[in-house]
Amino acid sequence: MTPQKNRLRVIPLGGLDEIGKNMTVLEHGNDMVVVDAGIMFPDDDHPGVDLILPDYSYILKRRDKLKGIVITHGHEDHTGALPYLLKDLGGTVPVLGTRLTLGIIRGKLEEHKLKKTKLREVAPGGHVNLGSFGFDFIPVNHSIPDGVALYIRTPVATVLHTGDFKLDQTPIDGRLTDYAALAKAARQGVTLLMSDSTNAETPGHTSSEAIVGATLRDIFDRAEQRIIVASFSSHIHRVQQVCDAAVAAGRKVVVAGRSMVNNTRIARELGYLHIDDDDILDAYQMEDLPPEKVVVLSTGSQGEPLSALARIANGDHRTVSIEAGDTVVISATPVPGNEKAVSRVMNRLFKAGAEVVHKGSARVHVSGHAAAEELKLMLNIVQPRYFVPIHGETRHLHAHAKLAQAVGVPAENVFIMENGLCLEITESGAEVAERVDSGVTYVDGLSVGDLGQFVLRDRQVLASDGIALVIVAIDARDGQIAGDAELVTRGLVLGSDTDAMLDEARERVSKVLKRTAKEGVTDQAVVKQALRDSLGQFIWERTRRRPMIIPVVMEV
Amino acid sequence: MTPQKNRLRVIPLGGLDEIGKNMTVLEHGNDMVVVDAGIMFPDDDHPGVDLILPDYSYILKRRDKLKGIVITHGHEDHTGALPYLLKDLGGTVPVLGTRLTLGIIRGKLEEHKLKKTKLREVAPGGHVNLGSFGFDFIPVNHSIPDGVALYIRTPVATVLHTGDFKLDQTPIDGRLTDYAALAKAARQGVTLLMSDSTNAETPGHTSSEAIVGATLRDIFDRAEQRIIVASFSSHIHRVQQVCDAAVAAGRKVVVAGRSMVNNTRIARELGYLHIDDDDILDAYQMEDLPPEKVVVLSTGSQGEPLSALARIANGDHRTVSIEAGDTVVISATPVPGNEKAVSRVMNRLFKAGAEVVHKGSARVHVSGHAAAEELKLMLNIVQPRYFVPIHGETRHLHAHAKLAQAVGVPAENVFIMENGLCLEITESGAEVAERVDSGVTYVDGLSVGDLGQFVLRDRQVLASDGIALVIVAIDARDGQIAGDAELVTRGLVLGSDTDAMLDEARERVSKVLKRTAKEGVTDQAVVKQALRDSLGQFIWERTRRRPMIIPVVMEV
Repeated sequence: MTPQKNRLRVIPLGGLDEIGKNMTVLEHGNDMVVVDAGIMFPDDDHPGVDLILPDYSYILKRRDKLKGIVITHGHEDHTGALPYLLKDLGGTVPVLGTRLTLGIIRGKLEEHKLKKTKLREVAPGGHVNLGSFGFDFIPVNHSIPDGVALYIRTPVATVLHTGDFKLDQTPIDGRLTDYAALAKAARQGVTLLMSDSTNAETPGHTSSEAIVGATLRDIFDRAEQRIIVASFSSHIHRVQQVCDAAVAAGRKVVVAGRSMVNNTRIARELGYLHIDDDDILDAYQMEDLPPEKVVVLSTGSQGEPLSALARIANGDHRTVSIEAGDTVVISATPVPGNEKAVSRVMNRLFKAGAEVVHKGSARVHVSGHAAAEELKLMLNIVQPRYFVPIHGETRHLHAHAKLAQAVGVPAENVFIMENGLCLEITESGAEVAERVDSGVTYVDGLSVGDLGQFVLRDRQVLASDGIALVIVAIDARDGQIAGDAELVTRGLVLGSDTDAMLDEARERVSKVLKRTAKEGVTDQAVVKQALRDSLGQFIWERTRRRPMIIPVVMEV
Repeated sequence: MTPQKNRLRVIPLGGLDEIGKNMTVLEHGNDMVVVDAGIMFPDDDHPGVDLILPDYSYILKRRDKLKGIVITHGHEDHTGALPYLLKDLGGTVPVLGTRLTLGIIRGKLEEHKLKKTKLREVAPGGHVNLGSFGFDFIPVNHSIPDGVALYIRTPVATVLHTGDFKLDQTPIDGRLTDYAALAKAARQGVTLLMSDSTNAETPGHTSSEAIVGATLRDIFDRAEQRIIVASFSSHIHRVQQVCDAAVAAGRKVVVAGRSMVNNTRIARELGYLHIDDDDILDAYQMEDLPPEKVVVLSTGSQGEPLSALARIANGDHRTVSIEAGDTVVISATPVPGNEKAVSRVMNRLFKAGAEVVHKGSARVHVSGHAAAEELKLMLNIVQPRYFVPIHGETRHLHAHAKLAQAVGVPAENVFIMENGLCLEITESGAEVAERVDSGVTYVDGLSVGDLGQFVLRDRQVLASDGIALVIVAIDARDGQIAGDAELVTRGLVLGSDTDAMLDEARERVSKVLKRTAKEGVTDQAVVKQALRDSLGQFIWERTRRRPMIIPVVMEV
């Protein structure tokens, strides 16, 4: 076996075959670093779950080796697991990132009451060492400012990790993806490229953020009443363009929604968002302003039921209401799974009389991720020896792998990995090594990691088929049934004559109890199973439903 | 008030502000007719629900007036409520439609064991009278053959109901939308146009079905292993094109999935699908065929977990398995809400080694609904006095209303209606009259209409927060507590030390019981409320969850 100091181990713990919870571990000798620590938002297969974290037990077991956590940009799918990871790590581990990235992280850590943290700012274009790892921070464009790719040097091999990126030739802040730095890395040699696959299925180039500004100005010029723009609060470039178009149209920007208030404040404090104090207001300050002087900048572009936009659409926002003739711009695209929620909000807005402008009707949104031609350009600039597509479902990883082969990366040098699989790089090349602990950790209320597949499965059964309980009291002295059996059901439809059905079910129960008593059954587990079988059969016959059936036998 | 015989009442009972459960009632004098009787498929807001029907109690109350039910085409969102409606109507009411439409309906009615039915075939281009209503069946293109628009004549006014349609200039079966018949209706006068809004937000024209055939031939030419094509089983034109491309490539068509087997059989029997007996096989007959001689035609284009394609992707289909190098074509677009399910199946297919071709990577699907320019053309041909956009969410109805105004329909003659609103047309014009009973009826297992909002709400709480039961036995003679309280939870995460928490919860319960006993409380409702409050508070403090709490007090 190759000695530790002669091999680099690269282990994605999240972000493969999924969109979210991005996290990669790199190990060399006695040093370990982590790139990104993101969360994933649960879908309808995870009822009641608040957040999904990567299972990072592999990191916790090796915490002594951990030299630092490097974050590529400030989005939740790259930062959201940090509060949990830092808590679990105990001592302070340095977290490295650019200024805005750390500004957003700082806010999150404070919300989690994490005080003793070690945030180390690195300038885009800057360099930092962590043990035997050297990191170059390379500016890239994305739908949040201050994003970076990482050129990672080790004595064994080099890795270029793109983070999330696009190649915007006319970025709002004038900060281009640093092509020279990428070319320099290529010259020095890139053993492994790990690159963002989110839009690998999209042909061509992703449009420049600048076109959204032009569309917004057009819309603002035509609007005669109030304008409401919903967007991601972290998309500071988008927010900047809304602010610019508003000021140009002689309107004030009114900020609505907690995360929009927080992120505009942080971005202005740190110098990433530029608008005069006079031109930006809180929602409660807007009362005196006539509608034609206002642009409401709002959260809720994903149809989130508790967001500012959803409350506005439902007519229960404290200060903003829809009048006929108002214009609402949904300046975002629904994340897969949110399409129906977004449509629901749009329908409500139309009913309230608003004109709703969305991605389908005007160019009010562009993606923050590189499309196929940009991905090929990245591959051509970086000229990696090996390639691992990251950040995407399997379909995206496969599409990206195809692009790599199209620009000349040999098929055997492209690895479609899975979370927890270790890629080992030595002098003699790269190969897939063992699988380490990985998976998901559910955050459910105050619980982190206690929720398992059994409880999730229970919730799904409860949701689709409901629950039926049968409660029987047994005299502790003689084992005789005491009183009547109680039947409780929830989430179950018993048909038009519920009472008659419940009576019949009770009869079945008492028959079972008489039978087991007659047969001299004393084992409660056997009695319970008999009750479960009989009641389950009865309910299935009558309803074609299989509710969760819970027999309770009480000794009194 | 205008006498009944001088007014036409048009009442959409479904299909407005929603995609699905299309149904429209028309009343004149003592006659009533119904156009379409569709279902809607439930989404994640309706856990456990099988189907959603329109609430058609308005029709049932007037069953004596009902002269017939006219169906525009054979899709479930236009036919699926028929078995329920016919059962509820009791006696036989004529159901009118074209041959394929009735063929599909006949199959459904047999599944529901409805035997005494009166299906009356009308040829496309034919005419039929129902009381004082005259119906012209006008051929239109759609994603199922034999679809019609209806030109409906009454002594008071005329209505053109488009059904679902597109204007395909090169339809697979050569059967064009009948422009002459539409123009003739316009010449005779169309008081009210009701037109399909599904694609009103889509600019331009919907592509011809023919382009899919060209793409399929290309893919089949290149494929070296097995080919699997997933599509809607009712899309007989698509199925025809798959068959034609397969035969041209020297492959046999293997049919997989129950509805695909049924619909290809019906379509072949009725002369809508043309393929030699030798070229089409059942899945169990394929064993001897080499992979390069097979095209599997499969259900599951929507990612349905139990469909043939999902089972193939998961490796648990009886006869079809994926080998590296196989080609899978998803020849459909995900219905909103199904995106994630489709993606999940695609990811599994990629992992199994298949090449997956989908709408995003090749022109393997086109819509069956008219886009904006076609909708304008329909308006311009028909020249209606009044316009009601139908078949769409509010956003689509609004978009369609805008198109109508763009081609010159005065804004005051365009009515954006809601399900249950009655449009009354008299000599003096059209106006929105009263609202009639309307809404949804849930089919849940064997129950039709018993499931209400309370049970649905219960299921949502059960799914997200779980359930906690506390069971207390009380001696019937003296009201004293008998035995220990039992606590049962499901779907709830109590943290890492569940037992300790349950013990603590039991202590709380016994404290409450001691307190109420001491206070002399005998009303069980009060005891239960105290238990509910105390336990709810305790669980909230420890978990930040609000499970359903059910106290059961048993007298023994």
